[in-house]
Amino acid sequence: MAYTPFTAQTLPARLAGVAAVTDRLGHDPAGWQVREVGDGNLNLVFIVASPLETLVVKQALPYVRLVGESWPLPLNRSFFEYNALTRHARRDPGRVPEVYHFDEEQALVVMRYLHPHVILRKSIVSGVVHPALAGHMGVFLARSLFRGSNLSMPADQAKADMALFAGNGALADITENLVFSDPYFEAKLNRHTPGLEPWVARLRADRDMKVAAQELKHAFVSKAETLVHGDLHSGSIMATDTDTQVIDPEFAIYGPFGFDIGMLLGNFLLAYFAQSGHEETPGARDGYRRWLLAVIVETWDSFSAEFRHLWRTERTGILYQHSLFDADPLGAEQALQSVMAGIWRDTLGFAGVEMHRRILGLAHVEDLEAIPDPARRIIAERRALALGRQLAVMRGTFKTTAQVCALAEHIEIGDLS
Amino acid sequence: MAYTPFTAQTLPARLAGVAAVTDRLGHDPAGWQVREVGDGNLNLVFIVASPLETLVVKQALPYVRLVGESWPLPLNRSFFEYNALTRHARRDPGRVPEVYHFDEEQALVVMRYLHPHVILRKSIVSGVVHPALAGHMGVFLARSLFRGSNLSMPADQAKADMALFAGNGALADITENLVFSDPYFEAKLNRHTPGLEPWVARLRADRDMKVAAQELKHAFVSKAETLVHGDLHSGSIMATDTDTQVIDPEFAIYGPFGFDIGMLLGNFLLAYFAQSGHEETPGARDGYRRWLLAVIVETWDSFSAEFRHLWRTERTGILYQHSLFDADPLGAEQALQSVMAGIWRDTLGFAGVEMHRRILGLAHVEDLEAIPDPARRIIAERRALALGRQLAVMRGTFKTTAQVCALAEHIEIGDLS
Repeated sequence: MAYTPFTAQTLPARLAGVAAVTDRLGHDPAGWQVREVGDGNLNLVFIVASPLETLVVKQALPYVRLVGESWPLPLNRSFFEYNALTRHARRDPGRVPEVYHFDEEQALVVMRYLHPHVILRKSIVSGVVHPALAGHMGVFLARSLFRGSNLSMPADQAKADMALFAGNGALADITENLVFSDPYFEAKLNRHTPGLEPWVARLRADRDMKVAAQELKHAFVSKAETLVHGDLHSGSIMATDTDTQVIDPEFAIYGPFGFDIGMLLGNFLLAYFAQSGHEETPGARDGYRRWLLAVIVETWDSFSAEFRHLWRTERTGILYQHSLFDADPLGAEQALQSVMAGIWRDTLGFAGVEMHRRILGLAHVEDLEAIPDPARRIIAERRALALGRQLAVMRGTFKTTAQVCALAEHIEIGDLS
Repeated sequence: MAYTPFTAQTLPARLAGVAAVTDRLGHDPAGWQVREVGDGNLNLVFIVASPLETLVVKQALPYVRLVGESWPLPLNRSFFEYNALTRHARRDPGRVPEVYHFDEEQALVVMRYLHPHVILRKSIVSGVVHPALAGHMGVFLARSLFRGSNLSMPADQAKADMALFAGNGALADITENLVFSDPYFEAKLNRHTPGLEPWVARLRADRDMKVAAQELKHAFVSKAETLVHGDLHSGSIMATDTDTQVIDPEFAIYGPFGFDIGMLLGNFLLAYFAQSGHEETPGARDGYRRWLLAVIVETWDSFSAEFRHLWRTERTGILYQHSLFDADPLGAEQALQSVMAGIWRDTLGFAGVEMHRRILGLAHVEDLEAIPDPARRIIAERRALALGRQLAVMRGTFKTTAQVCALAEHIEIGDLS
């Protein structure tokens, strides 16, 4: 059967023939409840429930859902999502939803229904704390990035995976344009909050910022260091009090170590500046702001600790190979320090451009969009633009997450922008 | 017909059915003279002459010729050589031999016979000057590297080419091991001049050098910036007084801008230090030494001038895209300065490791091997090791080729090592 986008009505008939589904839902598709719940930018997402169990079915559409059929997008992104999910499951077991079935022709993945998980971004808008979040994400970043790289993989497998994911160029193309370039000139798909114009104009006239954004694009396009998730923001994370799940890796490609970390920290910083737009009285969310900054610090710290651990215990790849440092373990530590410094610098740069594109580009974030008072939204946005600029341009000068958080607080409290 | 390695006896029958050959050589294969002349490390090379014209036929062997059948190597490197040759021909017309015919199944390329060209390395050993060399090579490097990158190519073509050449991993694997790792530990295939042991031991105990070599390997493996020739030493160049031809790009992959430039400059510097082993009386080759250093300066200068010219006139790719700098041409110049600084730094590092591996690894160079007196060979080799170390470890601190040449002269005259 040729590719057909399913509906809540047509999907059960298709799934009724899939053993991995009927093993879980039973053999009475007429009794299944199906809801289409996709609220992302690209795909159909169905929740399929029987009296026995509930599943999620994600199907790619041949165009960008956010924009419409005028922007075609290849269905094979589903293939890359499936391949990324299975690799993530191996590299950090339990941190991504289990895949039960993949149908390449229908660009369709059947996977575990996450319950009672909520999309992290919605939690953050509501001011809900997730105590396990930062530790889980730091370790996931370290394991997925280290184990997907030439620090760990056999050289032939790493080369085969690089060549495989090189086929996901249409998705990389979206990132290249929407993250690194469009925000910095009058691109057609851009939009921003009315009233923000003076700050937009200043940023687009900022030579150092434009050069920095292009240097970061250069790194994103050329630095095939590891398999990155490619879209790791707070809308790609589902969480409970005790669990964290990373979803939606359809943008997976080989890219820089710092890309996922930077995008995630950038979204946490956007969330930080958005809080003032959501608090009922000034200061009401002070504690939540402190928690968000602590999440930034702890995410990096746990990433760093786990990455260093893997460096010392699982460095079986062709880079910084063990045979060279057998007699000089301090040499391996010296190399680690240099590698971590590069990841840190890239991380800050990617965080900075992510903060900009969510305010100036096509795809915005609910953290800011949901601020009801436009005047308060503008305040949050110009502060975020200001910090993003400092992170990107000055990425070589920050030493610690504490310095980043201190600057964020200084911008927030002093209303600098 | 399945792949068969040809001999001088069996080749004419095969070529007799190829119009691109008989158009040039005529239709009497019995009257063709065939000689196998391959003296490289990997392939069969035939010169096929008829009374009308002479052609070169290069056929890949399924193993490394230098080592034997114990080291298998995929025949498809011929496919990548063909694809690189045709791209180089478009990007810098006239600088690579014209391809007349490619037979993928036989891993065989029929191309122009270069006459009266000589292999540059042989010229250099004999002390022959090629006045056009540096200018030609600088421009070739700029055009091939710029036009093969995302600075110039349409994004979809660049992605397709990156994915295509990602298939040439078996050849990249050789470089990864032989250039970046084997020289720095007791790898099985290593060899060096007897008597050089104290300097070899010192280098292998040099923590900063080992870390630098691995940082450079990291860059080689991960930085897919442009289509590099991949093996651009003086044995891959054929020259006359007025012409220069770049041959043998079977190692072509997407790699760092600085790789080809660094390997070439590293070979010029090896040639510089080798001169003292070839001169009949001390100082007899002073003029030639000066010429070699001038070649280094002029190669970089002409590369740099042409790269800057292309940046200003042909920057049609997705990196540092024109639309961002329309209103700020100085911004584009700022970005150019940053890009050139990165290329320069990588260039020096790659030059340094290339100098080491040609003395400590598997594949040596005739410049040094042909020095009849082992004592003088050791002098040349330890000086080259010393400069290579400084270039690799201190690659962030040199500003100009003049500084590099001055240090080479200082090591040569002061006998520092």
